[in-house]
Amino acid sequence: MMNAHILSIGDELLIGDTVNTNAAWIGRFLTEHGFRVEEIRTITDEAGAIRHAIRSAMDRAALVITTGGLGPTHDDITMQVVAELFDRELVLSEQVLEQIEKQFSRRNIELTAANRDQARVPEGSEILDNTQGTAPGVWLQTEHSALAVLPGVPYEMRSIMESGVSEKIRQGFSKLQIQATRYLKTAGVTESMLSSQLVGNLDNYLREGNGIAYLPSPSGVTIRISRSGNSREEAEERLDPVVEHIRGKAGDAVYGEGRDLSLSAVVGKLLHERNLTIATAESCTGGRIADTITNVPGSGDYFSGGMVTYAYEAKTRQLGIPWEILREHGAVSLEVALWMAREVSKAFDADVGISATGIAGPGGGTSAKPVGTVWMGFWIEGRHFALKARFTNDRNINKERTVMTTLDTLRRQLLGFDSFPYDLKPQTL
Amino acid sequence: MMNAHILSIGDELLIGDTVNTNAAWIGRFLTEHGFRVEEIRTITDEAGAIRHAIRSAMDRAALVITTGGLGPTHDDITMQVVAELFDRELVLSEQVLEQIEKQFSRRNIELTAANRDQARVPEGSEILDNTQGTAPGVWLQTEHSALAVLPGVPYEMRSIMESGVSEKIRQGFSKLQIQATRYLKTAGVTESMLSSQLVGNLDNYLREGNGIAYLPSPSGVTIRISRSGNSREEAEERLDPVVEHIRGKAGDAVYGEGRDLSLSAVVGKLLHERNLTIATAESCTGGRIADTITNVPGSGDYFSGGMVTYAYEAKTRQLGIPWEILREHGAVSLEVALWMAREVSKAFDADVGISATGIAGPGGGTSAKPVGTVWMGFWIEGRHFALKARFTNDRNINKERTVMTTLDTLRRQLLGFDSFPYDLKPQTL
Repeated sequence: MMNAHILSIGDELLIGDTVNTNAAWIGRFLTEHGFRVEEIRTITDEAGAIRHAIRSAMDRAALVITTGGLGPTHDDITMQVVAELFDRELVLSEQVLEQIEKQFSRRNIELTAANRDQARVPEGSEILDNTQGTAPGVWLQTEHSALAVLPGVPYEMRSIMESGVSEKIRQGFSKLQIQATRYLKTAGVTESMLSSQLVGNLDNYLREGNGIAYLPSPSGVTIRISRSGNSREEAEERLDPVVEHIRGKAGDAVYGEGRDLSLSAVVGKLLHERNLTIATAESCTGGRIADTITNVPGSGDYFSGGMVTYAYEAKTRQLGIPWEILREHGAVSLEVALWMAREVSKAFDADVGISATGIAGPGGGTSAKPVGTVWMGFWIEGRHFALKARFTNDRNINKERTVMTTLDTLRRQLLGFDSFPYDLKPQTL
Repeated sequence: MMNAHILSIGDELLIGDTVNTNAAWIGRFLTEHGFRVEEIRTITDEAGAIRHAIRSAMDRAALVITTGGLGPTHDDITMQVVAELFDRELVLSEQVLEQIEKQFSRRNIELTAANRDQARVPEGSEILDNTQGTAPGVWLQTEHSALAVLPGVPYEMRSIMESGVSEKIRQGFSKLQIQATRYLKTAGVTESMLSSQLVGNLDNYLREGNGIAYLPSPSGVTIRISRSGNSREEAEERLDPVVEHIRGKAGDAVYGEGRDLSLSAVVGKLLHERNLTIATAESCTGGRIADTITNVPGSGDYFSGGMVTYAYEAKTRQLGIPWEILREHGAVSLEVALWMAREVSKAFDADVGISATGIAGPGGGTSAKPVGTVWMGFWIEGRHFALKARFTNDRNINKERTVMTTLDTLRRQLLGFDSFPYDLKPQTL
């Protein structure tokens, strides 16, 4: 396999003011394009350090990507160092200057000498167009290695990687194995339930050369499956059986495919397709269920509205929950969760009502109802039930888990599954 | 200054499955403790790569921190490589084994051979207690350099850094300059307003040796000010004048000090102290104002509740906004924002009502009301006004900016300031 190195240039990364998300992004990009990322190195913006790091990386890797140090200030010396290293002059690129001038005139800002200097590139290097900003990328080649010099601004870097660098890789590294990657998104299972009980042993698939990783996050576990091949088609074709196998085993827990697919988008699509509207009544989640639903563009089509009823008074005034029920069972109870879900659907004239009431923490727990206890209520076209869960001691994680569990329950109900997230048992009165 | 190097070990970092937040955290920690972080290097978990990287880092730096490769699986070989490099045997540490056994018996899990192996450390190394997990850290010393070997699990690593490593640094690097850092949190100003119009030229302070950085984020701009000294007291004392100067210049925009201080906590404290309750009426923010307010523990004391009125019907049914007003002015209007704020305070019997109605995007914009247009309404103990802003084309950023602008307006009002975020002008009917 071809080795690649990533060099991140900038003091803000070393002193911890900025987390190096660029390196992770480039690492994934290069891995998917068939490279083996052998090393990521973050260095200070001093000429000696940059020179030494580029030289040593090009000695060891077929492709070296640098980010940072291309801005208009005196700290930004990467292009100068690269020119010296390749024994070239920095020359003004008319092509780049024109691009910069166009951007400035569009924004009605005057060009400074420092901006004009950004159009200077090592003689004979190939320009990698930057359509998002002023600093261009450049591509330089030696007999054994290629160097791409990119800006550190994340969206500029990504745009150049996806256009110019991608093109150069296609031309120059045609014999690379392509790596295809698929992401299965799951909800309502823990990482250990998913890997040991549902999916089970995958040794056969691993031996065949598939890469399989479980990536947990507060909003669910993603299964990353990758495989290389001589072409994208071949790699994808080889992936199909293992993806099918894992999808089958993981069953109801899989809500879709795609790294950035969100559960709220999937639930929104189901509501939209079925022409259903939804309303939310929230206590412990404090509005986050509604916020998550409305993060999806176009959610106005199916989201009628919601209530955040934090205080007892709000629960009685806004949702008409009788005082006796609150007094007898407490706000965190089966009765109140059921009542909230049904009443909010009536109040907003929605087909579906969902509710959450619980102890988010860190305070407010009792031995009978410890921190992390949450009741979630559902009124789905007349079906009426509630789920009780015990999450964690962390306020933020409890809010997030509750949001995901209510949305996942709704997804499974709309699809006609008889399973529930985390094997919770539905309860009614 | 003493140099420090950070080595991050693990393929998940190279292929981009995990973003290297550990390195940023350690970089900040070491910088604040007076080191100059010269390099961060991420390498694969192969013996040769680890050996070479540790050796070369110890040649160049007074302190080297490694993270990763201490788990119980066959990939985890860091401790073995370190033992070989120092020409020592791996020996069972009774102290560590006891700690591991205690943790397992508390969780009622049986100890495996692999777990027991985690108690093996290079002979003669000093143990850095891991109170959060099973893999211990170790500390090894040569004549010119010290090496700390730590687990990669973030909260385990942080806990060992703050106890064991911190202690070793105090003992072994007593002549280091300490760096003190202060964070001023601001709201309602852009980075360029803050740096050029408000704070202005700081060359004098920079020449004296203060480090000053503006760190923008969707929830506001943080000003990071740092300075070294021979002791913490000296460094803090040197910081006082520059912090006072900047605080004075930034004026109303500063809501407090502390890296993790949130605007919602500050507003919550003001409401609590003044014994005021609050209710929210949200359209474009979809519940995020309420969610943000209720992220603060104890917010039940002052948050009465909220409504998310997405649809026109919800605005009339839940808040009693007359159809004529909606028809005449549209939902995104001064009239509706004012009405929402007042009516929601009445509905929840709260002293303060705040509202937001706007076009979050990406769809729904018109030439008169383009995407990013937001009206925010305020009813603060009878004072009644609204602000109009034009944010961005990004749905998520528009939601976040609206949340922060409403909370910041409330903060300034509660403190009796006559300024408004982003110099917006209050309007009434």
